[in-house]
Amino acid sequence: MSYQIAVLAGDGIGPEVMAEARKVLREVEARFNLDIEYTQYDVGGIAIDNHGCPLPDATLKGCEAADAILFGSVGGPKWEKLPPNEQPERGALLPLRGHFELFCNLRPAKLHDGLEHMSPLRSDISARGFDVLCVRELTGGIYFGKPKGRQGEGENEEAFDTMRYSRREISRIARIAFEAARGRRKKVTSVDKANVLACSVLWRQVVEEVAVDFPDVELEHIYIDNATMQLLRRPDEFDVMLCSNLFGDILSDEIAMLTGSMGLLSSASMNSTGFGLFEPAGGSAPDIAGKGIANPVAQILSAALMLRHSLKQEEAACAIDRAVSKALNSGYLTGELLSSDKRSQAKSTAEMGDFIANAI
Amino acid sequence: MSYQIAVLAGDGIGPEVMAEARKVLREVEARFNLDIEYTQYDVGGIAIDNHGCPLPDATLKGCEAADAILFGSVGGPKWEKLPPNEQPERGALLPLRGHFELFCNLRPAKLHDGLEHMSPLRSDISARGFDVLCVRELTGGIYFGKPKGRQGEGENEEAFDTMRYSRREISRIARIAFEAARGRRKKVTSVDKANVLACSVLWRQVVEEVAVDFPDVELEHIYIDNATMQLLRRPDEFDVMLCSNLFGDILSDEIAMLTGSMGLLSSASMNSTGFGLFEPAGGSAPDIAGKGIANPVAQILSAALMLRHSLKQEEAACAIDRAVSKALNSGYLTGELLSSDKRSQAKSTAEMGDFIANAI
Ligand SMILES: CC(C)[C@H](C(=O)O)[C@@H](O)C(=O)O
Ligand SMILES: CC(C)[C@H](C(=O)O)[C@@H](O)C(=O)O
Repeated sequence: MSYQIAVLAGDGIGPEVMAEARKVLREVEARFNLDIEYTQYDVGGIAIDNHGCPLPDATLKGCEAADAILFGSVGGPKWEKLPPNEQPERGALLPLRGHFELFCNLRPAKLHDGLEHMSPLRSDISARGFDVLCVRELTGGIYFGKPKGRQGEGENEEAFDTMRYSRREISRIARIAFEAARGRRKKVTSVDKANVLACSVLWRQVVEEVAVDFPDVELEHIYIDNATMQLLRRPDEFDVMLCSNLFGDILSDEIAMLTGSMGLLSSASMNSTGFGLFEPAGGSAPDIAGKGIANPVAQILSAALMLRHSLKQEEAACAIDRAVSKALNSGYLTGELLSSDKRSQAKSTAEMGDFIANAI
Repeated sequence: MSYQIAVLAGDGIGPEVMAEARKVLREVEARFNLDIEYTQYDVGGIAIDNHGCPLPDATLKGCEAADAILFGSVGGPKWEKLPPNEQPERGALLPLRGHFELFCNLRPAKLHDGLEHMSPLRSDISARGFDVLCVRELTGGIYFGKPKGRQGEGENEEAFDTMRYSRREISRIARIAFEAARGRRKKVTSVDKANVLACSVLWRQVVEEVAVDFPDVELEHIYIDNATMQLLRRPDEFDVMLCSNLFGDILSDEIAMLTGSMGLLSSASMNSTGFGLFEPAGGSAPDIAGKGIANPVAQILSAALMLRHSLKQEEAACAIDRAVSKALNSGYLTGELLSSDKRSQAKSTAEMGDFIANAI
């Protein structure tokens, strides 16, 4: 099989962790006889520097011609003072999501065996572990709803945003959550604020309707404020969390932080044709960029998600997952995952990549 | 001085913890020579049962005639199946906030000395303690913004909510946050989502303008998704968190849960005349209602907030705060704050009330 991949490494640690993902992909291609062609495009801050905007036309065209986008990370202090619209994160990610209608965002987060001490949770809570898949709607809600803007003058000047959801938007993402739950622990927790938002009342109603087609999956509803609380007390009781765009943004980050190992988390953003953007959950980490110490695992796992979801190469994806587990289970770790007394055993970005590539 | 208080005890543990607050207030009145008259009104589920709606006219009229509202808690399984609009929480709290324009919500949360083990945070994080005041805008944003509703048919049926903020609304709540910070550790963290929301861009701008009048207070901005994360890692670095209505709902609950002792937290919701509603942060806890084991401290501290903010009786308020500290510091605690091996020393609701009343 032959594929075209648009590689958007971006800023900060993006390029260095991307290099390791490419290393691992090279082994996977050889072993599974895949013919993958990669084309690199500027995105984010580097694109602002080189072309004056965070998502240049050439990048967008390149993505259109590809089977999937392998994304690094964007942003950094250099571009923080730009107007919100022009900043790397906002100016690259949101248009990409909108343009390709990447409505389905999967953010898996689990507490890895042996890394419980990394979690900011109390030891008796983290000892129970957790494994949550956040299914976030990514092209609707208050992110893209119109009207959005400003009006009026002086003290009365006001800004407004519109949260908007249609049955169609809700049911397609709900369906994905239920299907994912079937392959896991068969429980969907739908997050809303139905005691305040009209959108949430419709959300709850449509999710109930979709649930009828999945009698084998348990459904519960929880308010967003309560969800942020319960995740702290009993994260192990959640399986799939189904969220609107804004609530998913907030909850998925809370869950990611609860693992204490952001460098291991990746996410998939897909549309209904299977096209998708695959990226690490962490940011561009400008403070450690260029030092060769960034954890490449999240980027490598993004490549696995890409193989699985866009390229439909499940076996190849599993090979990466297994190779990563092998590294982690052998205590082969970058510095941020080691307690200070073991920091001297820390592996570099390249060593991690080599180990995982060899394990394929 | 003579005052009128509307007492809305509500459902679940509401009436029993309210009885203890009244006990403590009785001592305070005697000691500080206050003449406070209390009138009780139904609210929430009990009001639905007795009058067919969660906020009867008589209750609203009674509140209008009062100097402040001392609120218990509302809701329970009995009323959970009602349509969202008619449910106790939604149907009582939101109209009260709107009717009296209680735009300013103060939610203090601190990790009490000696209760660090209650926090769901890792012991080295909770050992550093934290003391955060969440200042939440309570009558604007997506809670009350118009239009809000539904339209269309079939798959295209959609729901919509409007987030809306004016300069006036933002600056008045920002001012309160900065003033509160002056009396504390002089730092305001303003929470927004300025990389996505037009409302947040205006929010950030107005907060910057207000900050000019408070050169002695440090201001930082943080995105809501990042805020939920940083609170888990370094809660001790936050002082005053300034939030819009929805973000404050989410964050204040996260912070409350981080203390691990919801039964100690209360909140004040006020308008610009000093009129306010004072309530415990926790819910009606129907599972423990009627057992005499609920923690009355949050309700008692609500009475202190009422004395301080609406009745301007600072000394009386401090007397309550001190009496509560005395109880907690002597290890005088209800069961939910004790580890299981010490559960036999648990004090009852009434014992807590007696101890605190005596300590006035
Ligand atoms: C950068 C920002 C616009 C984005 C979002 O809010 O969706 C980010 O926080 C994320 O979660 O991918
Ligand atoms: C009951 C509900 C409407 C309310 C809110 O969302 O404001 C509650 O969660 C709160 O925080 O006081």
